[in-house]
Amino acid sequence: MDFKFLQELIVPAQTKIVLLILDGLGGLPLEPGGKTELETACTPNLDGLAVKSALGLTQPAGPGITVGSGPGHLAIFGYDPIKYEIGRGALEALGVDFELGPDDVAARGNFCSVDERGVITDRRAGRIPTAVGQELAGLLRTIKVDGVEFFVEMVKEHRFAFVMRAPGLSDALSGTDPLKVGASTLSVRALNCESEKAAHYANQFIEQARCLLADKQPANMITLRGFAKLPRIPTYPELYGLHPAAIAINGMYRGVARLAGMEVLQVCGDTIADEFATLEACWHDFDFFYMHVKKTDTFGEAGDFAGKVSVIEEVDALMPRLLALDPDVIIVGGDHSSPAVLKSHSWHPVPVLLYGRHVRADGIPEFGEHACLHGSLGVLPAKHMIPIALANAGRITKYGA
Amino acid sequence: MDFKFLQELIVPAQTKIVLLILDGLGGLPLEPGGKTELETACTPNLDGLAVKSALGLTQPAGPGITVGSGPGHLAIFGYDPIKYEIGRGALEALGVDFELGPDDVAARGNFCSVDERGVITDRRAGRIPTAVGQELAGLLRTIKVDGVEFFVEMVKEHRFAFVMRAPGLSDALSGTDPLKVGASTLSVRALNCESEKAAHYANQFIEQARCLLADKQPANMITLRGFAKLPRIPTYPELYGLHPAAIAINGMYRGVARLAGMEVLQVCGDTIADEFATLEACWHDFDFFYMHVKKTDTFGEAGDFAGKVSVIEEVDALMPRLLALDPDVIIVGGDHSSPAVLKSHSWHPVPVLLYGRHVRADGIPEFGEHACLHGSLGVLPAKHMIPIALANAGRITKYGA
Repeated sequence: MDFKFLQELIVPAQTKIVLLILDGLGGLPLEPGGKTELETACTPNLDGLAVKSALGLTQPAGPGITVGSGPGHLAIFGYDPIKYEIGRGALEALGVDFELGPDDVAARGNFCSVDERGVITDRRAGRIPTAVGQELAGLLRTIKVDGVEFFVEMVKEHRFAFVMRAPGLSDALSGTDPLKVGASTLSVRALNCESEKAAHYANQFIEQARCLLADKQPANMITLRGFAKLPRIPTYPELYGLHPAAIAINGMYRGVARLAGMEVLQVCGDTIADEFATLEACWHDFDFFYMHVKKTDTFGEAGDFAGKVSVIEEVDALMPRLLALDPDVIIVGGDHSSPAVLKSHSWHPVPVLLYGRHVRADGIPEFGEHACLHGSLGVLPAKHMIPIALANAGRITKYGA
Repeated sequence: MDFKFLQELIVPAQTKIVLLILDGLGGLPLEPGGKTELETACTPNLDGLAVKSALGLTQPAGPGITVGSGPGHLAIFGYDPIKYEIGRGALEALGVDFELGPDDVAARGNFCSVDERGVITDRRAGRIPTAVGQELAGLLRTIKVDGVEFFVEMVKEHRFAFVMRAPGLSDALSGTDPLKVGASTLSVRALNCESEKAAHYANQFIEQARCLLADKQPANMITLRGFAKLPRIPTYPELYGLHPAAIAINGMYRGVARLAGMEVLQVCGDTIADEFATLEACWHDFDFFYMHVKKTDTFGEAGDFAGKVSVIEEVDALMPRLLALDPDVIIVGGDHSSPAVLKSHSWHPVPVLLYGRHVRADGIPEFGEHACLHGSLGVLPAKHMIPIALANAGRITKYGA
């Protein structure tokens, strides 16, 4: 089903949809035969919602594919994550809340250590403290080259986001990191004719950086890789006529939401409760709300099973505030799995719940991986959830007579 | 899976397949947690068949998509309903049992009211009685234009089907209905070079109609829209080597079946029992039977839950007559859902049952939406049912050595 087909069936409605994403929601048991994080968590509110919902399991990018947060989010936002790709550099810039423009080319930057011949001795400069990185980033910001504007935004430790802004830049550029020690940093190469100007600017930046950092051991050089512009993707207003808002604390999720045409709301504070407060405050101003909870993934990646369980319970305790707003359609799901036992993202399908007054409820009184197996949504591509939500919100008309 | 792949695996067999479609079969409960129409109906025969069958739920055109009867039927007949589209005009002609030829261009016609300047004051001419429409259609049938043959067939009230027949007509034509009152009716425009002749004929028809109807208040003008030829779709004989028959009372279903290469049987009477009698009478003459029951949808669209339940029970009571014929494979399903609570077609997956002596039976003793959730067919595209039925009928050979 392509967007053009769907777009022609979209009709306006006065309904509201909430897409609540618990990052890395899917999990695994600690012991064979045990319960996952979600199944272990005490979630009376989610279980109560589940019984009135249709359940299933989403696959972000196909069987066996583990996704990063970028493609995971594009998929649960309804985009084909293989067709629409966000480059590494662009993701890094989004991650620090940098508002990438259409002409900006972003890259992931690393401070590194080189010897007197320019050969890399440490690709991460001994993971310098973030404060040191900040200071060096300040130096890099003094670099000026005619015809182009540079931006350097710290991520943490040795990592920074690098952005070039000038009309007509192309991102078909090779990276400078040889990806091993014992080799010299590389020059940026233009991978086609259109990217020669961008390569020239990037190499000028790198040469000035080499001079500025020459005596700054261990971080006496930089590498840039993953050059990328933001892809152009069709937005929610264009596709669905929605007026959507995003409630997320971390930059990358805010950035991907902005890419989809969502208005990124200011959250006062950094707790999940603060995000729910933002939802309440802006409830009347939008008809679609994406809410993002980061810490399920953070604990999953840290291998902290109990920590992930507690975040799920924290969300569950806040659910009555969401339900009190009486959304027409609610999706609760994740962008990918992050089982604590794997300490990483994984390929496992992600539990999902769809609530709405016209949902054919499965009557399953539990929200969990095994319970979702019996749900009527089945195991489905994550990108299908948005059309289903739109149908339940009365926003898709009949195809054919 | 495309037709070319499937076609090469088709082998002949002496088996018989019955595809029994209860229009708009899928439903919803009246109250949260309640039973759907199918679950409410007392269906001992269908339940008895279910226990020996594989169950599942079909999606006609993808997640969240509500289909009309045309695409719904194409899908359950095994065609991709997005690839093969039947235009509105062609469906209208099929609906009145008009046998559209390959050169015919059909349109949906409306009688409307216009003021002395030709501005529409009522797009439906006050929904004139069908008898009045019939009389005016008789007038329109007197219109003659050299080189083309016109057909006017009443649907009901202000609606009629319009057909032009001449060699080489194209259907790339704009409609004449401005879709609002206060605007003039439009001329038919050719949307490409090949359709200029058809546009010319249609406009000549309209001008003569204007003169003929000038004093026939309130229906003193017509609009034509949804110009369409029948699409060319590969037929069952071509694709599967089947000799198929259709048993349906309503024109549109007969028309779509004819499009798929089915022989449309004469049903003596208009009850479901009459359709079963036709099946019995013609049992030895064909190897594939499509049977259509309309009233499940009619009651669903009317919001009559009990009426829909009673039609399902009526079908169930007739099932022993079908089973007595001992078909090799039986599919019982629907073209889409039509829940009485929604009073319309809907996007909800449709329960389906597949019986055959080589089916791996699920052992589920009930045919209903929730029971089908646990079936081995899962939630599947409707177009997949025909290949599965053919396999069970011994009509698909092994792929590869």
